[in-house]
Amino acid sequence: MQNPQVLAALQERLDSVSHTPSSYIETLPRAVKRRINALKQLQVRCAHIEAKFYEEVHDLERKYAALYQPLFDKRREFITGDVEPTDAESEWHSENEEDDKLAGDMKNKVVIAEKPAAEEPNPRGIPEFWFTIFRNVDMLSELVQEYDEPILKHLQDIKVKFSDPGQPMSFVLEFHFEPNDYFTNPVLTKTYKMKSEPDKADPFSFEGPEIVDCDGCTIDWKKGRNVTVKTIKKKQKHKGRGTVRTITKQVPNESFFNFFNPLKASGDGESLDEDSEFTLASDFEIGHFFRERIVPRAVLYFTGEAIEDDDNFEEGEEGEEEELEGDEEGEDEDDAEVTPKV
Amino acid sequence: MQNPQVLAALQERLDSVSHTPSSYIETLPRAVKRRINALKQLQVRCAHIEAKFYEEVHDLERKYAALYQPLFDKRREFITGDVEPTDAESEWHSENEEDDKLAGDMKNKVVIAEKPAAEEPNPRGIPEFWFTIFRNVDMLSELVQEYDEPILKHLQDIKVKFSDPGQPMSFVLEFHFEPNDYFTNPVLTKTYKMKSEPDKADPFSFEGPEIVDCDGCTIDWKKGRNVTVKTIKKKQKHKGRGTVRTITKQVPNESFFNFFNPLKASGDGESLDEDSEFTLASDFEIGHFFRERIVPRAVLYFTGEAIEDDDNFEEGEEGEEEELEGDEEGEDEDDAEVTPKV
Repeated sequence: MQNPQVLAALQERLDSVSHTPSSYIETLPRAVKRRINALKQLQVRCAHIEAKFYEEVHDLERKYAALYQPLFDKRREFITGDVEPTDAESEWHSENEEDDKLAGDMKNKVVIAEKPAAEEPNPRGIPEFWFTIFRNVDMLSELVQEYDEPILKHLQDIKVKFSDPGQPMSFVLEFHFEPNDYFTNPVLTKTYKMKSEPDKADPFSFEGPEIVDCDGCTIDWKKGRNVTVKTIKKKQKHKGRGTVRTITKQVPNESFFNFFNPLKASGDGESLDEDSEFTLASDFEIGHFFRERIVPRAVLYFTGEAIEDDDNFEEGEEGEEEELEGDEEGEDEDDAEVTPKV
Repeated sequence: MQNPQVLAALQERLDSVSHTPSSYIETLPRAVKRRINALKQLQVRCAHIEAKFYEEVHDLERKYAALYQPLFDKRREFITGDVEPTDAESEWHSENEEDDKLAGDMKNKVVIAEKPAAEEPNPRGIPEFWFTIFRNVDMLSELVQEYDEPILKHLQDIKVKFSDPGQPMSFVLEFHFEPNDYFTNPVLTKTYKMKSEPDKADPFSFEGPEIVDCDGCTIDWKKGRNVTVKTIKKKQKHKGRGTVRTITKQVPNESFFNFFNPLKASGDGESLDEDSEFTLASDFEIGHFFRERIVPRAVLYFTGEAIEDDDNFEEGEEGEEEELEGDEEGEDEDDAEVTPKV
């Protein structure tokens, strides 16, 4: 659970204040303004104490990640089918397991016999568990192209790994795949780097650690299987002679797997254009969402129980963003025939 | 900083998932449904681990409250005028204090001389500091009646006190007043009780500690100064004789100070009507807002720097709520002349 980051969300939700006519402050005697400046100095010191608090919360999160892991490992085993839950493990009531303690209260307890009825199919584990979550979560389904789907069906687990104590604050999303015909990596990774210190220029805006940058990984695509590029044939007309030749070139292709080849956040030097800023912000939001919601509560996104409407996330925008990029990349194309490589 | 509670806000902000046709789950073979039940059991166990995590975060908050307190005490001294900040303490730049380290960089450093210009007034401390915050924050100004204002000008500090380790999770808001003509209490208190465990009936909705109940305090009003009641004269006609007599009665009166006489949350037994539920929810939100935003960052609400628009909080509703209550209480009045007691 990443509490710090979400104080921003709290402020959005709770701040309910009208604009003070700053004129009011200006009218105050200089002696009073002076005391207000003293309070601001104290406020900056508070922000730096707050930063230390969030570092300790991060340590707590690391500690608890270790406590969750055995349950997440069991989850993976049930999903893959490596282990079959016992009858006790697969009991479910309309109430929760606390009711087990109400001795002999068996009403609305659902026990499904381990042996399926003869005529019923019994696939291994929970087929397409993670892929189904990708389909259910708009933020993700918007990124998934038709040709991504058969690949995502090989996804077997998603893990969150925290940076070690003393290391810069960060977390890694590990996407574990079963052997497949698309790439050779057993694990694809996305690393999110965080920062937990007040901004010098604007210390009062500090609301806890923020994702400030991310790194992907190289996907070792099998020959002709890379869905993140497409080959286009294009005709070129020779300026002078007017002869026409056809050349082929590879251009980026929309795909969820571009998630592993993100933009780099701007260094202090150059800055990103608005579109890139938006793409990056969306990527950070998705990374945070995997860490904060999907990995800790996967089954609820599979069944839909975790589903809530989201007002702050405009549907589709990410998609458009991706398209825009595509256009930029392939801008000098004229009369292009698209031949997807898959 | 109360991270746990605000995960709810995070979910509102981040959850972006479409509704899974639960039909999809129904279509799955019984053997697969059985494994899904096993995942749900694991998920409930995760929720109970999460509850423990939040208890540890609460301990951290308690630890850090002690680190903030010396700064808050200094703040109180500057506000009341008990202590005058030194020139160093009242320096302020457009950047933050980190710049002090840039040796000799004195540009845009503002030092206001301790001695005010002869002609300028020099009131004690920062007059009406907390009252100004009440005026600036809609959530509060909506509760403040004209006759509350002279009382709130005597408010000198607001403190948050956490429950001791091992005690049930709770916090107390302490409103410290200078001696005044309205009541004899030096401190008015509002206590918020919290709960950090998954709900038996709905363990998956658990998002961290929640405020579940609150207690106010008795205000020892000086004679004729109680703004939370008003006296009304009403005429009563005798059924038989038709003679009319005038009686006076006291009825509740709208006032911020009703904040210290809250509704009680419903026990497991009886439940509150919708209006009362709303009033209570608003009270909890205000208590949380004092603890989470106003007390930690008071100067920013005084200057307006903390000001942000809030989409989730409908302005005015609380006011209406209060009025409704007033009506309920005084319902059998006919032809009432209102005589405020102040």
